[in-house]
Amino acid sequence: MENFLENINIEKPALLIDKKKMNSNIKKMSQKAENSGVELRHHAKTHQSHEIASKFKDLDNNSITVSSVDMAYYFAEKGWNHITIAFPTNILELDRINILAEKIDLELLIDSQEVVKHLDKNLDESVKLWVKIDVGYGRAGIEWRNTNEIMKIVEEIQKTQLSFEGILTHAGHIYKSSDKQELQRIHQETINRMNDVKKHLEVEGVNECRISIGNTPSCSNVDEFDQVDEIRPGNFVFYDLKQYTLGSCKENDIAVAVACPVVGKYPDRNKILLHGGGVHLSVESIEGSNREVFGYLAKTNDKTWTGIDCKSPVVSLSQEHGLVRVSNEKMKEVEIGDVLPVLPIHSCMTANLFPYYKSLKGERIPKFQSIRK
Amino acid sequence: MENFLENINIEKPALLIDKKKMNSNIKKMSQKAENSGVELRHHAKTHQSHEIASKFKDLDNNSITVSSVDMAYYFAEKGWNHITIAFPTNILELDRINILAEKIDLELLIDSQEVVKHLDKNLDESVKLWVKIDVGYGRAGIEWRNTNEIMKIVEEIQKTQLSFEGILTHAGHIYKSSDKQELQRIHQETINRMNDVKKHLEVEGVNECRISIGNTPSCSNVDEFDQVDEIRPGNFVFYDLKQYTLGSCKENDIAVAVACPVVGKYPDRNKILLHGGGVHLSVESIEGSNREVFGYLAKTNDKTWTGIDCKSPVVSLSQEHGLVRVSNEKMKEVEIGDVLPVLPIHSCMTANLFPYYKSLKGERIPKFQSIRK
Repeated sequence: MENFLENINIEKPALLIDKKKMNSNIKKMSQKAENSGVELRHHAKTHQSHEIASKFKDLDNNSITVSSVDMAYYFAEKGWNHITIAFPTNILELDRINILAEKIDLELLIDSQEVVKHLDKNLDESVKLWVKIDVGYGRAGIEWRNTNEIMKIVEEIQKTQLSFEGILTHAGHIYKSSDKQELQRIHQETINRMNDVKKHLEVEGVNECRISIGNTPSCSNVDEFDQVDEIRPGNFVFYDLKQYTLGSCKENDIAVAVACPVVGKYPDRNKILLHGGGVHLSVESIEGSNREVFGYLAKTNDKTWTGIDCKSPVVSLSQEHGLVRVSNEKMKEVEIGDVLPVLPIHSCMTANLFPYYKSLKGERIPKFQSIRK
Repeated sequence: MENFLENINIEKPALLIDKKKMNSNIKKMSQKAENSGVELRHHAKTHQSHEIASKFKDLDNNSITVSSVDMAYYFAEKGWNHITIAFPTNILELDRINILAEKIDLELLIDSQEVVKHLDKNLDESVKLWVKIDVGYGRAGIEWRNTNEIMKIVEEIQKTQLSFEGILTHAGHIYKSSDKQELQRIHQETINRMNDVKKHLEVEGVNECRISIGNTPSCSNVDEFDQVDEIRPGNFVFYDLKQYTLGSCKENDIAVAVACPVVGKYPDRNKILLHGGGVHLSVESIEGSNREVFGYLAKTNDKTWTGIDCKSPVVSLSQEHGLVRVSNEKMKEVEIGDVLPVLPIHSCMTANLFPYYKSLKGERIPKFQSIRK
């Protein structure tokens, strides 16, 4: 099999990005959002990179979502003016939130009256607030049924200098869908539940209430976005093996791979050993044909990777080691010192572990260094 | 419950270290090694910190093990002269290995004749080589039964300027032990298999062959180290919940905890939400009483954490979110804006995610930043 990696100088695990695949993913989602007349405020926690986010700017899209105050700082410093921190506001970080709010158009999430009061008392600048709704995931947010509590929070906001932007949800339970039907059912249920909340608020006299939803399986598997104002998917920029199993992408859409040097060959146990472990790939897994799988080798040509090599699963990961089960044929083909691309299970977590990306031309693409600050 | 965290200034997830617990762990293992007359070359991949490794220097121990060339560079720059890179040598990194070998006493792992030839051809400096043996884990190394191949590798080394140091193994399958008996059986089997290899080499005329073993469950659960020359445990410096389930430590020996701000309370679903997700804790899990658990809140007093709060498991993690199931009593006690300590499942992977530690006095303890370079 031809391997484009022979043309890139790699000595140790590196996170590769195929810009062509990535740009195509970005364009498709942007086009779909535009066709539906919704705002795409993509979740930059997946790539954590100004350079990558700028691909959206090229498409006249200046708004992003992030998952922490640290990440908002990084993007604000790079000139981003419209940022939503899609994580329940941490009242211990209000000093830094104040500094951000002075500089940019900041949108925050809340799901309690208590935090609204706290923000009103401690923020010098006005910010827009989204009330986080739980539509069935059971992580953060007020349950969609609990419209009394939701209304009380909105009323609490209306008493302050803060502004109520709308209701926001993340239907994370969609990742457990067993098939496309279930996935579409959860998506539709999410839309219905959010609109039920909105109608309830309208009855109570709240006329301005935007609806924001966001996850890659929903946004990739449906063609139109009715009855919502904003979508916030993130993972679609890269996709990964988990998204592939959910039908969110084709195998050839996966835009990142970890380049791993081959350091051992064990023909008696049908395994090759890669330098590429949990500190590079993260330790998420999916169900393989008969066991847990932590990634797959990618098929390659002389230019890039071209899909999943299903016969070469990563069957175990330790801190630095990745063990791949291979066929006899593959065993003969692979040599110690080769570099092989591994497709990740969860690209957000994999990207979080690397300090930069490498393009197929070997250029470094810088990124935010997560919690390293 | 009293909480020492009220005295430390924390706004966002931080990796705390209780130096008293850590120093006690280090002293105990050092004493045990000394009593048995074996060299303790502890695995610094767990803490990745010169300051922490220096606790061993205080005990006249100047040798360490690391898991990558990058990490060896970090420690060599800090003045460490005796370093084993306990990962099969990656022939793509020989330029940097040469630079290291000029500077320090470097020991490398190999498990093929091919890599020995490659090292001989490309290294300017002599290094000591350990032949990696697989005693049943099935990750790296030549199977202990395959003494012919092991002997061929030793002969290959003897032809070169390189020096044969001995045989080395990591019995990682010990982590799957269901009880202390099985753990001790695997430990004894490891010792026996390594000594069988050594005897075979002696018969073939190889008189100098050290034996190096190393994993925390073995080294913590046995009292004496017979028939080995060197031990390389790493995790014992901190321990964690996985080690606790293996009987390697007492709950109060766990020396690191992630301090996490409380950002949400959901009494209707018995959950509190922490800022503290997979990018802080890593996503390893253990079996809880009736479900997968990603960590537990720690019990606290006014000085430190004091053990596991079994009634407060972390039941799910996303990128930044940690969801904890709590009792009604705990729900009443906890407030938004509190900071709670979470004990990690696998402290090596948790520590890898942070740029520094924070002591209980709030001092920063710096560390190597993994693959960030």
